[in-house]
Amino acid sequence: MDFDKLVHQPTRLQIFAYLYRHGETSFPDLKEALDVTEGNLASHIGKMEDADCVAVEKQFVDRKPQTTYELTDRGREKFEEHIGTLEALIDDLDE
Amino acid sequence: MDFDKLVHQPTRLQIFAYLYRHGETSFPDLKEALDVTEGNLASHIGKMEDADCVAVEKQFVDRKPQTTYELTDRGREKFEEHIGTLEALIDDLDE
Repeated sequence: MDFDKLVHQPTRLQIFAYLYRHGETSFPDLKEALDVTEGNLASHIGKMEDADCVAVEKQFVDRKPQTTYELTDRGREKFEEHIGTLEALIDDLDE
Repeated sequence: MDFDKLVHQPTRLQIFAYLYRHGETSFPDLKEALDVTEGNLASHIGKMEDADCVAVEKQFVDRKPQTTYELTDRGREKFEEHIGTLEALIDDLDE
């Protein structure tokens, strides 16, 4: 059973799941939803960006700069694969 | 969402799942089933033992020493809780 550590790490697994469900999300919203520190969130998002799993968009909203994140196609795909792995592990428990 | 890192770590998650399904298992059987190195398996089993999640039994089979492992009640409980956390994350994706 192959576990992708990029996706499996607890904080990142939750970032993946949140962005998968909610689509484009701002940094403050993500921080609040996951209850993590700014530094921790930035570090994990950075790793996901480096792996081409998250796209970052910087724009101005009411003249204020706002950064939003969303999963790339590759990010969605890797997350779906990983959920499949976890589901298989869980399903096997009933056998 | 609370992720127990003792259980969540990929190799340990698979050891937990295997012992949960199969009960008492010898070291070589576990090594073969999970396709991990001896050192890696011993290190993870050691951490699970330190956390009172695995019980170790040493016995003689055909006059050869054999070490077997099984989850303790605490180990089963922690694993079930963790599976509950993962199931909740997966279920939420459909909402």
